[in-house]
Amino acid sequence: MKNSLPRASLRELGVHLGQLQPGPLNAITDVAGVRVGHATLVLGDGPLQPGHGPVRTGVTVILPHADNLYQEKVHAAVHTINGFGKVAGFEQVRELGTIEAPIALTNTLNVGLVLDALVQHAIHQNPCLGIDAHSGSVNIVVGETNDSYLNDIQGRHVRAEHVWQALVSAQGGPVRQGAVGAGAGTLCYGWKGGIGSASRLLAPELGGFCLGALVQSNFGSRRELVIGGVQIGRQLRHLQEPPPTSPGSIMIVLATDAPLSSRQLQRLCVRAAAGLARTGGALRHGSGDFVVAFSTAERLPHLPASLTASRAVLLDEEPVMNGLFLAVIESVEEAVLNSLTCAETVIGRDDHLGQALPLEPLLELLRLDVLK
Amino acid sequence: MKNSLPRASLRELGVHLGQLQPGPLNAITDVAGVRVGHATLVLGDGPLQPGHGPVRTGVTVILPHADNLYQEKVHAAVHTINGFGKVAGFEQVRELGTIEAPIALTNTLNVGLVLDALVQHAIHQNPCLGIDAHSGSVNIVVGETNDSYLNDIQGRHVRAEHVWQALVSAQGGPVRQGAVGAGAGTLCYGWKGGIGSASRLLAPELGGFCLGALVQSNFGSRRELVIGGVQIGRQLRHLQEPPPTSPGSIMIVLATDAPLSSRQLQRLCVRAAAGLARTGGALRHGSGDFVVAFSTAERLPHLPASLTASRAVLLDEEPVMNGLFLAVIESVEEAVLNSLTCAETVIGRDDHLGQALPLEPLLELLRLDVLK
Amino acid sequence: MKNSLPRASLRELGVHLGQLQPGPLNAITDVAGVRVGHATLVLGDGPLQPGHGPVRTGVTVILPHADNLYQEKVHAAVHTINGFGKVAGFEQVRELGTIEAPIALTNTLNVGLVLDALVQHAIHQNPCLGIDAHSGSVNIVVGETNDSYLNDIQGRHVRAEHVWQALVSAQGGPVRQGAVGAGAGTLCYGWKGGIGSASRLLAPELGGFCLGALVQSNFGSRRELVIGGVQIGRQLRHLQEPPPTSPGSIMIVLATDAPLSSRQLQRLCVRAAAGLARTGGALRHGSGDFVVAFSTAERLPHLPASLTASRAVLLDEEPVMNGLFLAVIESVEEAVLNSLTCAETVIGRDDHLGQALPLEPLLELLRLDVLK
Amino acid sequence: MKNSLPRASLRELGVHLGQLQPGPLNAITDVAGVRVGHATLVLGDGPLQPGHGPVRTGVTVILPHADNLYQEKVHAAVHTINGFGKVAGFEQVRELGTIEAPIALTNTLNVGLVLDALVQHAIHQNPCLGIDAHSGSVNIVVGETNDSYLNDIQGRHVRAEHVWQALVSAQGGPVRQGAVGAGAGTLCYGWKGGIGSASRLLAPELGGFCLGALVQSNFGSRRELVIGGVQIGRQLRHLQEPPPTSPGSIMIVLATDAPLSSRQLQRLCVRAAAGLARTGGALRHGSGDFVVAFSTAERLPHLPASLTASRAVLLDEEPVMNGLFLAVIESVEEAVLNSLTCAETVIGRDDHLGQALPLEPLLELLRLDVLK
Repeated sequence: MKNSLPRASLRELGVHLGQLQPGPLNAITDVAGVRVGHATLVLGDGPLQPGHGPVRTGVTVILPHADNLYQEKVHAAVHTINGFGKVAGFEQVRELGTIEAPIALTNTLNVGLVLDALVQHAIHQNPCLGIDAHSGSVNIVVGETNDSYLNDIQGRHVRAEHVWQALVSAQGGPVRQGAVGAGAGTLCYGWKGGIGSASRLLAPELGGFCLGALVQSNFGSRRELVIGGVQIGRQLRHLQEPPPTSPGSIMIVLATDAPLSSRQLQRLCVRAAAGLARTGGALRHGSGDFVVAFSTAERLPHLPASLTASRAVLLDEEPVMNGLFLAVIESVEEAVLNSLTCAETVIGRDDHLGQALPLEPLLELLRLDVLK
Repeated sequence: MKNSLPRASLRELGVHLGQLQPGPLNAITDVAGVRVGHATLVLGDGPLQPGHGPVRTGVTVILPHADNLYQEKVHAAVHTINGFGKVAGFEQVRELGTIEAPIALTNTLNVGLVLDALVQHAIHQNPCLGIDAHSGSVNIVVGETNDSYLNDIQGRHVRAEHVWQALVSAQGGPVRQGAVGAGAGTLCYGWKGGIGSASRLLAPELGGFCLGALVQSNFGSRRELVIGGVQIGRQLRHLQEPPPTSPGSIMIVLATDAPLSSRQLQRLCVRAAAGLARTGGALRHGSGDFVVAFSTAERLPHLPASLTASRAVLLDEEPVMNGLFLAVIESVEEAVLNSLTCAETVIGRDDHLGQALPLEPLLELLRLDVLK
Repeated sequence: MKNSLPRASLRELGVHLGQLQPGPLNAITDVAGVRVGHATLVLGDGPLQPGHGPVRTGVTVILPHADNLYQEKVHAAVHTINGFGKVAGFEQVRELGTIEAPIALTNTLNVGLVLDALVQHAIHQNPCLGIDAHSGSVNIVVGETNDSYLNDIQGRHVRAEHVWQALVSAQGGPVRQGAVGAGAGTLCYGWKGGIGSASRLLAPELGGFCLGALVQSNFGSRRELVIGGVQIGRQLRHLQEPPPTSPGSIMIVLATDAPLSSRQLQRLCVRAAAGLARTGGALRHGSGDFVVAFSTAERLPHLPASLTASRAVLLDEEPVMNGLFLAVIESVEEAVLNSLTCAETVIGRDDHLGQALPLEPLLELLRLDVLK
Repeated sequence: MKNSLPRASLRELGVHLGQLQPGPLNAITDVAGVRVGHATLVLGDGPLQPGHGPVRTGVTVILPHADNLYQEKVHAAVHTINGFGKVAGFEQVRELGTIEAPIALTNTLNVGLVLDALVQHAIHQNPCLGIDAHSGSVNIVVGETNDSYLNDIQGRHVRAEHVWQALVSAQGGPVRQGAVGAGAGTLCYGWKGGIGSASRLLAPELGGFCLGALVQSNFGSRRELVIGGVQIGRQLRHLQEPPPTSPGSIMIVLATDAPLSSRQLQRLCVRAAAGLARTGGALRHGSGDFVVAFSTAERLPHLPASLTASRAVLLDEEPVMNGLFLAVIESVEEAVLNSLTCAETVIGRDDHLGQALPLEPLLELLRLDVLK
């Protein structure tokens, strides 16, 4: 089977899902100020030598803004769909409703080292950290999925320098998707998955807000994949031997410029599960399915100058909340699918195959339905 | 438009969704011992006279078993998908992990009276209640959705005698679905909804467990409805003027004979949202979306004779947990759809129309896709 | 044993606990606008005739302000310390972070009827309720404790008219405490408990905010009571035969004029448990221990005129948050103790005795310690 | 002021708090099989050179049993009292209700490196980890408090070898308390705090179960400390200049041999806050207050051989649950106090003083009250 079509997002391939319009980039970076950076580690081939390779992993960082996040925090929320996973940093977000450092995604066994690297980064930016009584600590959110089918995960090959590299390369503009960064070695619905992103805009009368999603996809078995209601997975599953179903997981990051409180952002997080479900996701036992959401609408100074502040807040009304909820559902759905259509085939440890979702037969199937 | 086909479940209409097999009744009553009873209130016609009618409402009760539930409790869990609703009894289920009374569904403003009636019922069954120090109280779970488009909801027409009637009529066997009981006046995806049920069986090597769902459906706008991946809502929405989108809600009750702990039952509850999403559900702001789950595998005596007991428990393993999760997703999806295909047209207050989902065009559309 | 001292709050008796100053009334009504109303039901004597009396119960309502709460909601939060109880209305407060009706406290088996009465009240104030699509429902928070040792709880003697009576009588100013309203029949630490209230003021440099607590106390065994660190319970327990330990419960309502979000109010709720613990509370298995908190600082219109609003918010800073937290702890501690020192002896069903905490020996014991 | 009395636990000093009897060691190791290990890092003196010292920190590990925890997991639960902290591993415990690796405590900025070391340890014990599809990942629980007043916390001086050292040294028997392990550099109520432990036994008729607590104490200001109801903090606070109040935190680990489910263990966790409150704890804004509980009664195989298992479970009954709850409250209270009475004075970075709680004046004050 050949894949002559270049890898591209579903929409670039001509498939338009959902009711809402995407932003210009159809990516989380449509939310002004948000930056994404990757460090991709691809080293070695052949049989697994635990601790030594082959390496198919990486780290992806999402920055709510380009300035010092510790000094200028953003409102945030977290949500656990299925907690079979190793995220760090959730308790403090639940309590305080803020993000104060770059969000990082990596592989399951690398959470510790990536967390430590981001602590180091925060110290570098804030030399008072842990010294000044008013800046005692920093909370780091790290998410993960398990890339062990392709990657020597025991090696914990993502080190501090890769985190720097991801941070330094972080930028607005188009997001590199597929087998990059934290998505270098992940599988989704039995095909090569990885990083995917998408966005939606609300109508001007609903505030014209932008909502974007970025996922690290690593879940599902081949027969489950659904695109636009079409049972793609079932129809394509015989093209090739699928990899054994592994536990899998998904990390979902949501960004918006709507002025939401942490309570409202938490409500957004809950809706991400419906986006997953639209792609056929069955919320499996072994899947660590986590959501992080933040709003860029306001920056909260680390050391406020006053007791109270005046804040613009979105009111909990049907049309606008439903608009945001639908934006979450559609963005997450499309981000998952983009992680598939963007990812190139990756051959990993022990010659394990992470086969790219074949685009020609996909489009042929969709043409009969969604594209008609 | 005429509906010459008799109202029936989706599967009776020849549409088979999902991978798993349903139980013999394809209803929550496939879980041995579970009983369902309805009292349906239909009175009067014409303009709304608040407090006086017309009445299109009712109550539905679900009994985990036919004996005294207070004396023989069952393991249970609850979950809130979206909390814009008025369920009662959730806190104690969260703390103790048990159900000790019939579960009742009714309309939004009737929760108080139905709760009181079930307290009265519990006293009747257990004369010591509130007298004996060891039987101080009883926890009642009542769920609701808002039937105010068709019903004089201000009237709170469901009284104690209707609850008795539902309890007395509760039985195993086929479940009456559609515009009955608590579903008498509800709308779903802009069509007449109501009570729906479905079930799934696990393979013998996964324990052969049975899982059933019963829903009181009252959510969604017409354009959102999806059946088997087909955008039914969009294609049928011009057949007729839809009702104005109302806040809506859904109550979901899950039953299983698998020996699950309250923690495991809670995990089942979380998966119900994916079943909703498969039908197009967008988890709207104004929707009270709640799930209650129980296991019939063990009965817990109100006054135990010993400190500890020996209990058979299901272990948290991939295949069986995933089987149960998929059973939840498929049962909830099909129960929602059955509430639509079973419901007859209901004309309510102010001649508001709850139009039955037209079956012929539905099947024609599905024939092109799911049924091919 | 004679009680020649008139019943009074602990502070009126000369015992000053805590570091912070109370407001002028030392009651929840120190928070401007808050009103409290009681209806107390005392009927009959002698042997229990289930359903007929004797009656020692009632209802207490707390109004965040005197206007239409449905049209002008307030920010709120709820918290469950131990969920063995039957509160209603918690799910919607968790989701939306608002209170939109009077908060009511009553006995365990009366939650349904009180809830229904408050629905009726909301309809009376808002005739559109359940008719207008934008006003489909109302969320009612009802709390309860179990007064069955003194009261014919099976009778559910609190009816709609008693709720009206409590609402009509609700006022600012001093709060009647002890064996009144929902506290008519409750026991606390083996003595007669009931309604108690207290308040604390923050220093002007911390915003000068006011925080008040009101409790319905009904928990604990005699030997556990601690006042100002003194083991009062142990030392007074032999004065008289204590009642058998009953399951017990406590409802705690917190009010503040600080401009807190629902997230911050939830943090306040969590601290209430420390106030309980200071009085010796052991958070028993059978106790339904619940907290509701609201802020009067902002009113949220039911139908907002715009998408966003500007809001003054308190920033999460050490001194002011710690001040509020301490105010919660001290107010709850003192409110519990006031419910004891204010309550008169009540003789209930079957001549069960709810003995007033004897003040002379109490003060004598405290004089050696706290008062020295 | 001289401290001629040797540092010792409160009970060894003759002060007996609470109603229940401690186990023979009055430590978490009274729960059979539980092991505790410390690595204490004390290096350098004088001015802080960030990243280089002086070092006053460490790591403490708690092992539910001495065998391979990944292969033989234990039932567990977690609870967040105040989430201003950086614990790792909580989400998976919430979902699955198990602990599968040693629990580690360390300083706030060292969570990443300690987590990574424990991943490495799990790989060492289980070479299949991350390779075999059935052993994809391991969940590590790491807690922390902030020792930056005495320690060069930026240096993250706890490395993998210190974790090995703590693991290797872990043993049953008496627990070293005070300024050891993760408690080397922490402060509590303005005095030197650190590791503390205590235990309680239930009466034989309540199953004779044992419950133990271990804390890493690092919270509170001097004036708040209460022992046995006596305001020790206020009376001793002028002995010496207290350190500036820092944010502080506490980690609490509970162990029991009672056969509890994760739901029941979670209920135990909630009661820990009442133990804190008895010592004067005010649950401050900046405090990360977390609880982890496990039961040694059953071991759950990583790869079960069957779908279901038979399990002895404790039934939720008043006397035994209340006994366990009281055991939690008393053990946590006494563990916090033992961390104070056991800790020696520590002089840290910049000659910051962590003054040992002076025992003579303490006992003199208590003699007037508790000891009389």
